[in-house]
Amino acid sequence: MPEVTFEVDTDSAPDEQPGPNPFNRWHPDIPAAVEAEPGETMRLEALDWTGGQIGDNDDPNEVRDVDLTQVHYLAGPVHVEGAEPGDLLKVEFHDMGPLNDRSEFGFTGTFSQQNGGGFLTDHFPKAAKSVWDIDGYTVSSRHVPDVRYEGKIHPGLAGCAPSHELLERWNEREGDLVERYEADPESIPNHPTGEAEPPVANLPTPEGAQMGEMDPEAAEAAAEEAARTVPPREHGGNHDIKDLSIGSTVYFPVYVEGAKFGIGDFHASQGDGEITFCGAIEMAGYADVEVDVVKDGMDRYGVDHPIFEPGHRGPTFEDYVTFCGYSVTEEGEQRYIDSHTAYRRACLQAIDYLKEFGYTGQQALHILGTVPAEGRQSGVVDIPNACSTLAVPKGVFEFDVSPGHLENRTDRGELLVTDDPLGE
Amino acid sequence: MPEVTFEVDTDSAPDEQPGPNPFNRWHPDIPAAVEAEPGETMRLEALDWTGGQIGDNDDPNEVRDVDLTQVHYLAGPVHVEGAEPGDLLKVEFHDMGPLNDRSEFGFTGTFSQQNGGGFLTDHFPKAAKSVWDIDGYTVSSRHVPDVRYEGKIHPGLAGCAPSHELLERWNEREGDLVERYEADPESIPNHPTGEAEPPVANLPTPEGAQMGEMDPEAAEAAAEEAARTVPPREHGGNHDIKDLSIGSTVYFPVYVEGAKFGIGDFHASQGDGEITFCGAIEMAGYADVEVDVVKDGMDRYGVDHPIFEPGHRGPTFEDYVTFCGYSVTEEGEQRYIDSHTAYRRACLQAIDYLKEFGYTGQQALHILGTVPAEGRQSGVVDIPNACSTLAVPKGVFEFDVSPGHLENRTDRGELLVTDDPLGE
Amino acid sequence: MPEVTFEVDTDSAPDEQPGPNPFNRWHPDIPAAVEAEPGETMRLEALDWTGGQIGDNDDPNEVRDVDLTQVHYLAGPVHVEGAEPGDLLKVEFHDMGPLNDRSEFGFTGTFSQQNGGGFLTDHFPKAAKSVWDIDGYTVSSRHVPDVRYEGKIHPGLAGCAPSHELLERWNEREGDLVERYEADPESIPNHPTGEAEPPVANLPTPEGAQMGEMDPEAAEAAAEEAARTVPPREHGGNHDIKDLSIGSTVYFPVYVEGAKFGIGDFHASQGDGEITFCGAIEMAGYADVEVDVVKDGMDRYGVDHPIFEPGHRGPTFEDYVTFCGYSVTEEGEQRYIDSHTAYRRACLQAIDYLKEFGYTGQQALHILGTVPAEGRQSGVVDIPNACSTLAVPKGVFEFDVSPGHLENRTDRGELLVTDDPLGE
Amino acid sequence: MPEVTFEVDTDSAPDEQPGPNPFNRWHPDIPAAVEAEPGETMRLEALDWTGGQIGDNDDPNEVRDVDLTQVHYLAGPVHVEGAEPGDLLKVEFHDMGPLNDRSEFGFTGTFSQQNGGGFLTDHFPKAAKSVWDIDGYTVSSRHVPDVRYEGKIHPGLAGCAPSHELLERWNEREGDLVERYEADPESIPNHPTGEAEPPVANLPTPEGAQMGEMDPEAAEAAAEEAARTVPPREHGGNHDIKDLSIGSTVYFPVYVEGAKFGIGDFHASQGDGEITFCGAIEMAGYADVEVDVVKDGMDRYGVDHPIFEPGHRGPTFEDYVTFCGYSVTEEGEQRYIDSHTAYRRACLQAIDYLKEFGYTGQQALHILGTVPAEGRQSGVVDIPNACSTLAVPKGVFEFDVSPGHLENRTDRGELLVTDDPLGE
Repeated sequence: MPEVTFEVDTDSAPDEQPGPNPFNRWHPDIPAAVEAEPGETMRLEALDWTGGQIGDNDDPNEVRDVDLTQVHYLAGPVHVEGAEPGDLLKVEFHDMGPLNDRSEFGFTGTFSQQNGGGFLTDHFPKAAKSVWDIDGYTVSSRHVPDVRYEGKIHPGLAGCAPSHELLERWNEREGDLVERYEADPESIPNHPTGEAEPPVANLPTPEGAQMGEMDPEAAEAAAEEAARTVPPREHGGNHDIKDLSIGSTVYFPVYVEGAKFGIGDFHASQGDGEITFCGAIEMAGYADVEVDVVKDGMDRYGVDHPIFEPGHRGPTFEDYVTFCGYSVTEEGEQRYIDSHTAYRRACLQAIDYLKEFGYTGQQALHILGTVPAEGRQSGVVDIPNACSTLAVPKGVFEFDVSPGHLENRTDRGELLVTDDPLGE
Repeated sequence: MPEVTFEVDTDSAPDEQPGPNPFNRWHPDIPAAVEAEPGETMRLEALDWTGGQIGDNDDPNEVRDVDLTQVHYLAGPVHVEGAEPGDLLKVEFHDMGPLNDRSEFGFTGTFSQQNGGGFLTDHFPKAAKSVWDIDGYTVSSRHVPDVRYEGKIHPGLAGCAPSHELLERWNEREGDLVERYEADPESIPNHPTGEAEPPVANLPTPEGAQMGEMDPEAAEAAAEEAARTVPPREHGGNHDIKDLSIGSTVYFPVYVEGAKFGIGDFHASQGDGEITFCGAIEMAGYADVEVDVVKDGMDRYGVDHPIFEPGHRGPTFEDYVTFCGYSVTEEGEQRYIDSHTAYRRACLQAIDYLKEFGYTGQQALHILGTVPAEGRQSGVVDIPNACSTLAVPKGVFEFDVSPGHLENRTDRGELLVTDDPLGE
Repeated sequence: MPEVTFEVDTDSAPDEQPGPNPFNRWHPDIPAAVEAEPGETMRLEALDWTGGQIGDNDDPNEVRDVDLTQVHYLAGPVHVEGAEPGDLLKVEFHDMGPLNDRSEFGFTGTFSQQNGGGFLTDHFPKAAKSVWDIDGYTVSSRHVPDVRYEGKIHPGLAGCAPSHELLERWNEREGDLVERYEADPESIPNHPTGEAEPPVANLPTPEGAQMGEMDPEAAEAAAEEAARTVPPREHGGNHDIKDLSIGSTVYFPVYVEGAKFGIGDFHASQGDGEITFCGAIEMAGYADVEVDVVKDGMDRYGVDHPIFEPGHRGPTFEDYVTFCGYSVTEEGEQRYIDSHTAYRRACLQAIDYLKEFGYTGQQALHILGTVPAEGRQSGVVDIPNACSTLAVPKGVFEFDVSPGHLENRTDRGELLVTDDPLGE
Repeated sequence: MPEVTFEVDTDSAPDEQPGPNPFNRWHPDIPAAVEAEPGETMRLEALDWTGGQIGDNDDPNEVRDVDLTQVHYLAGPVHVEGAEPGDLLKVEFHDMGPLNDRSEFGFTGTFSQQNGGGFLTDHFPKAAKSVWDIDGYTVSSRHVPDVRYEGKIHPGLAGCAPSHELLERWNEREGDLVERYEADPESIPNHPTGEAEPPVANLPTPEGAQMGEMDPEAAEAAAEEAARTVPPREHGGNHDIKDLSIGSTVYFPVYVEGAKFGIGDFHASQGDGEITFCGAIEMAGYADVEVDVVKDGMDRYGVDHPIFEPGHRGPTFEDYVTFCGYSVTEEGEQRYIDSHTAYRRACLQAIDYLKEFGYTGQQALHILGTVPAEGRQSGVVDIPNACSTLAVPKGVFEFDVSPGHLENRTDRGELLVTDDPLGE
């Protein structure tokens, strides 16, 4: 195995690590914790995205009560010798796995509408939780029976540090969105309609910020402007792309000297969209990465977002049940080419379908969030309806979930759902 | 081969067919042209979606000048004995192909902003056209050199007739959208910003309507309320799902006695989203379908949109270059979880990338619209950015299009682009 | 579709075709029936391999009584301008299908031990037959219930004409084998042990020979030395490679001026090995081929046998039940690294397994001969046992054939088996 | 990770392990080293098959001088509670990897003709060696440049202990073979023709035997009759099936109380046939297995050899160059349906082809032995020629190895080949 250049201890708090502390904000001045040469391969370890707030137990309130100011705890930054703004950082993922030798637990959560909500929060406002066993690559959950499959492991989050200019741009545009929302909530399409009013964006906050090995005083100032790790942005970041699995090669835009690459938020498996929000099978994990520099790559390849070549390692599935959605809301309102609504409708069709086989809605939601389901932008031009499809692999179920097999309907228990959505 | 129960003549106009005339509107009262028993297999033929307006020539003005009131010309309706509202119509696609024995031409068009535009119409406002040779399953184009691949043939459009009630609902909600747009164009997100102001929806119009074998007088009245075939809706319709290829089984909701199934708009191949609007390789074609009825299927399976099981027949690809987009507009405006914008940005990244290998932007657009590219809703929960990805199969190119292979840059000619966008 | 340059009529006898007669021997002097330029695409049609001796009926004696001196009836020879000995003829398969527009019947036969036998003839000495419906790509048989799948269409037989020198070499070495056999039958390993004593090779015979458009007198002389089409040889010929399906590109060695390419023996589907002898789903069919010449290709690529690049078109399967065999005979005799015996044992294991689900042995044999099963040379070095494996795709069955699903055992009828093996 | 129930130390000799000693013979009386309950998951570790005789260095004489009486060193035996003769032992492979946390070296060897030889020993009589880096799943070798791929990890060897009766049968039939060979070497087809005369089988020998935790005295007696682990047999054993990778489920016949399962000979990757003999990428490794018992499974499933369901985890490849071989020897002798010869000829074609791209023959041999190449029994009925094919995945090369890309020919160095084949 390659040298572990960033090591974590899952038994210690994120800010009390024996080794370097992980970081949870994007800022150009967070000092590099690892130095690497082009061509070098190293192992980087990361805590789960919450830094250990959710355990292998049956308490859904842990999900309800997660402190989201802390997330996500990342390995790095890695300084790659010779990388300069305008370059692409080439990162090859030779291997990934859970910590502690490839066999641990993972968790999936439905977030409470009071605490950020999620894609289907109007339909599932209460926090819920499932715990997954990770046995090699094979995952299963005592809370979601009759589902068992080889996961598609990937880092939810990876990217290089922004420059000061880019950071400023991020803060401006996200601040604008918050202002627009506050001025007129109705002007923001697809924001959940419930009472809870989750935020439309997470602006910088020093609360919960952990600035790696930065000098405390400087860290406090920097945290005021450091970008949250919640959204993906043009550097990559929290893009939650399930296909970025073992064997993939990614080219990340570089904005600062040395690139300052960070990675974390490992998922044992995820469906396209990560629709439960904390929807993948979340875990502490490692990646064995080889880094290299493509000089002037952004200009030469005409890109300013990451590009990647997915690996040849599956799992692969051939048999799917596919669901369709169009951009008409649940209330029957016609939207204009709205792929978000279309995908939500497709997911809801799938949930209703799975309920006919005996799952609860929350269980079905956790299935869709975790299995390697393909969520496609099937049609985006046929005004006024976008068409999105969700293809659910049959092979992840231990029974035949095809149409025509309702004989497989049975009671499948239920998920851990919080009683008290407000946690009061 | 199964009996051809709906036959067309590509040398005759859509309203002068030797056999039954195709229909181009959705209305419950269009009489069935074909009668079928459950379990029966038949061949259904359809003209290309425009009814022959675009030919195998080098004139892009044909695309600019298409009369869109006429589209799409469909085979059927097929009355399936015993099908009743609430059932699902099971349709198995045993085979599909171009007419005239599997080897003809197809076409792809970028629509003029003046005539409906499309997904990237702000970037490509002028009409353009490419002509494709269909040689068995293998497609190639004299206008897009060095691309040649086995297509993923499918019907862009298929579904059962709506009931009167459903039709009314469609007309209401789409009318509402038009009203909202007219009241405040800014209130409709993602509508193209150019001067041309393409419509947000196509409301019923008797102009260009062809009501199959309906009595002329009744047809005239029905055409006033008959739904256009442009958008997909909960019955399926124009959903443009590339994965609905040979070997697939689809379950369509039934709304009227006998189902009145229609099909057409065959594509020799298409990328997810059909992003050039007339973006697939459009052709006249046939489908060999076996029909059956699942009694009370909508309720029993918990669905009110089509579901399907894709076939095992490829083409399959393993090697991709994947592009990412996030919901920030080209102008830098932050949108809230907007998968439409995210997908557009991913497509634009891919176009810029392909330009580095020597294609023009319009050529790149036609590549993305036609090859079996995977457009995924990768992340839909990480506020405020949706993440969409576009995975382009390397195997469709006759050169290595991987990062690291810019030595393959060469002049690749250009597409047929109209000089005069207005056609005046 | 490309021009049909070699057309057949399935309603006429092989020697009474309205167009050019097919040929059924390999000889350099059979004149070309088709002229082609490099880069040209054309359609070539062929009768089924027996020339119509077996029909869509329930009479297994047709298989028992087949006249094998006649086989195989091929399309061509095609003379490709500029092809010379030492070149490789590049043939791209753009499309293939059954005649009469892609939907006809096919047949599978177990040959009688008295008439050539086959791989498992000691176990299944009696002739048997199954008839298959070909519905687009989907095949099924009234004689083998609960099996239905998309086939992997391919030509069993394709190659260029031998030179006089090569022909002579073939005749010599096959004559030697016959002599060795006649001198000492025991010296020929793996020859069936039954009383029937099928031949070890088919030497030239004018009986049943059809020499294409050759002058009758010359034909009679040439037929005395013309090679039978039964075995594959270094030119390709009857290699029965299931993976040579739509989208494949093959490079065939050229031995005579113009290449004189021939093709036929189309199969709607076949498992590796074609273990029932007439084991694929045999049919009349066509191929759309593009031909080109690679000058001096044999030397430049270091090959003197065909090489090919398989296409991307499936069907693809993910789930298999795999069976193992080792080179110990059914009687317990240890063979030395004998992959033939190992594969036979693996096939017998699979047959016994399928019998537990309710099939007869002959049905199971026809399943293994026709579905796209993968027969692998898994181990060939671990003395004294070769290990061969047979991977049977689960997806071809309409029930779950996995271990653990014996609840799916039911009576599945039986195959058409001849009563009187000798036909006397 | 599951509990390590059988642990090895790669720094200690096989007979000086800190934990239980591995065993290298099959005998019913070797006592169980591990006790397991049905449903239990555990980790089993094994030394490389030679027990550490070959190191990460550039000395090919290590391969030449391997002591083959010692091989293969296995983990176990595992006693599974309740398993009885006639049952099937169900073994699910949840994970596998090299020891020491998934990143170590592996080796591939061409055996000297003097020391066992191999499949192509007449063509490559001298011992040779390549060393491979295993970086996560990605393998590459300093001795075989421009090849780099994700391997298909699997145990070369796994199975249950034979009963006394079965053991006796093995010894009898293998002894018979040796006798027949000694009586008349010519009577054994496919035995290498070189002077070295490698054995046709390895009969029991106490030399080098390691009988696990057996009492020394009993061990000495048992070793006289204990079966060598070299060949696969009906219990599985050394079957070298590359598809038995992560996620597979195998059903092994049980012959003794408790099954006494053993496993080892891990390969980071292998091509079908393992044609260099020591041809896979050999390594020390572990498997996480879940064991269960299928009562009376041999009878109920009609099998007496292992069957398995391969996993969904790749790597998967789509693009291949495929080579054909027929059962005519290199000298032009016609064999009767001889798949061994046919496969050898296909492999030789592939080697000659790769040489045109700049590899030496020995390098090409090591490529074919290690990459996930598909070796198929394509045709086994077309007398007198069997047809075997070898499909080499293009994606394992870092350049385009397709026909038409000879511009990629370059000097690629050479393998470590021993100077002195006899080691004298």
